[in-house]
Amino acid sequence: MREREVRRAAVGELGEALRALVDAAVRTDVPVADLEKATAAAQELTALLAADLRHVHEIASVDDPETGARWYSPVYGPGSPVAPPMEVEDFPADGRCVGRVTVGKKHEGPPGLVHGGILALLLDHVLARSARASGHGGLTATLTVTYRRPVHLGVPLIVTGELGSVDGRRATATARIVAADDPGTTLAEGEAVLVALRADRASEVFAPTGRAVGAWTTRSSDG
Amino acid sequence: MREREVRRAAVGELGEALRALVDAAVRTDVPVADLEKATAAAQELTALLAADLRHVHEIASVDDPETGARWYSPVYGPGSPVAPPMEVEDFPADGRCVGRVTVGKKHEGPPGLVHGGILALLLDHVLARSARASGHGGLTATLTVTYRRPVHLGVPLIVTGELGSVDGRRATATARIVAADDPGTTLAEGEAVLVALRADRASEVFAPTGRAVGAWTTRSSDG
Repeated sequence: MREREVRRAAVGELGEALRALVDAAVRTDVPVADLEKATAAAQELTALLAADLRHVHEIASVDDPETGARWYSPVYGPGSPVAPPMEVEDFPADGRCVGRVTVGKKHEGPPGLVHGGILALLLDHVLARSARASGHGGLTATLTVTYRRPVHLGVPLIVTGELGSVDGRRATATARIVAADDPGTTLAEGEAVLVALRADRASEVFAPTGRAVGAWTTRSSDG
Repeated sequence: MREREVRRAAVGELGEALRALVDAAVRTDVPVADLEKATAAAQELTALLAADLRHVHEIASVDDPETGARWYSPVYGPGSPVAPPMEVEDFPADGRCVGRVTVGKKHEGPPGLVHGGILALLLDHVLARSARASGHGGLTATLTVTYRRPVHLGVPLIVTGELGSVDGRRATATARIVAADDPGTTLAEGEAVLVALRADRASEVFAPTGRAVGAWTTRSSDG
């Protein structure tokens, strides 16, 4: 898998460069002539990358769909230009995962604040992941977010997910967001019900990918 | 405001070019050498745009914070490289808004499917917007999303938000997502409670922007 590691590194470096570009694009005050120059340069760059494109349902060679490691995840993907990105550590023995993230200008909601839908995205990820990391992978069936306080851009955040109960294909999880420098004050919290797909339903849902996809499917031991 | 219109057009064109670049970046299968070339080109492009940057709390000159028109919104912003983008039409007399969007590879969750957190982001936007368009702007206090069916990438979607009850600073709204070619089948639905900030609290929350921000604040007529 040496080749895959080399590609993963290159994908991660391009992802980092594009995240910096996105941040500059949503904050730039350069003259209109420079915006036009940038547009032309972006089109050239797109042509280089578009010389060989995966279909929208195709799984990237750098990914591992069995474990759920996704290099272009819009939440944590090292190769994703749209991810904040959040860095997440798994503690499967405790059914927990802990994400660290600082949300920037590209994900602004009300002026100066993180978009509430982006907070929901971060919570959704750790909710599903805390279940998946303990072998209870599933799709989110319901997600409830309670916003306690406005969350400002540029503040280091900690996003924690924790598996609750498990009953057959169904699991529950809870999550919260705090500022790294004020961990006692909850800024937002989330609750989810996750339901693992039955194998036959998973085959149908993931058929367009042309691959077996384990991480969102029920395990042999449960219903 | 001719100058602002010229800049808005240039910002929109750069946004479109960058969205195409992002799409190519998350789907490219070009050789590693080309990824490296692209990284260097992206860094050069970043340097061009970063010559003059707004602070993370500063409001863009193309924006109108009084009406809530945001050119870099991560949901609908013409200048946003991370937005799907959704095109939203407001029907303030009915307390409704209707979004049209096709979600691409950059917002993938499980293989081939739209990320559940991105569906929450789309719902959150129309929920808050249906209230805001009728003069009941507020921050989301709670958001509940029910996922009925997996939503595949690349499918034209319709996302509808509708204002429910209004009680002083508090409003409720509901929303749903359907496929444009199967409007009778709900794919996901959302409910929210929105609460307008009191003027004194708004001054505090938006102080870092150095501007008066009307769209998320209580109107003079309500408490």
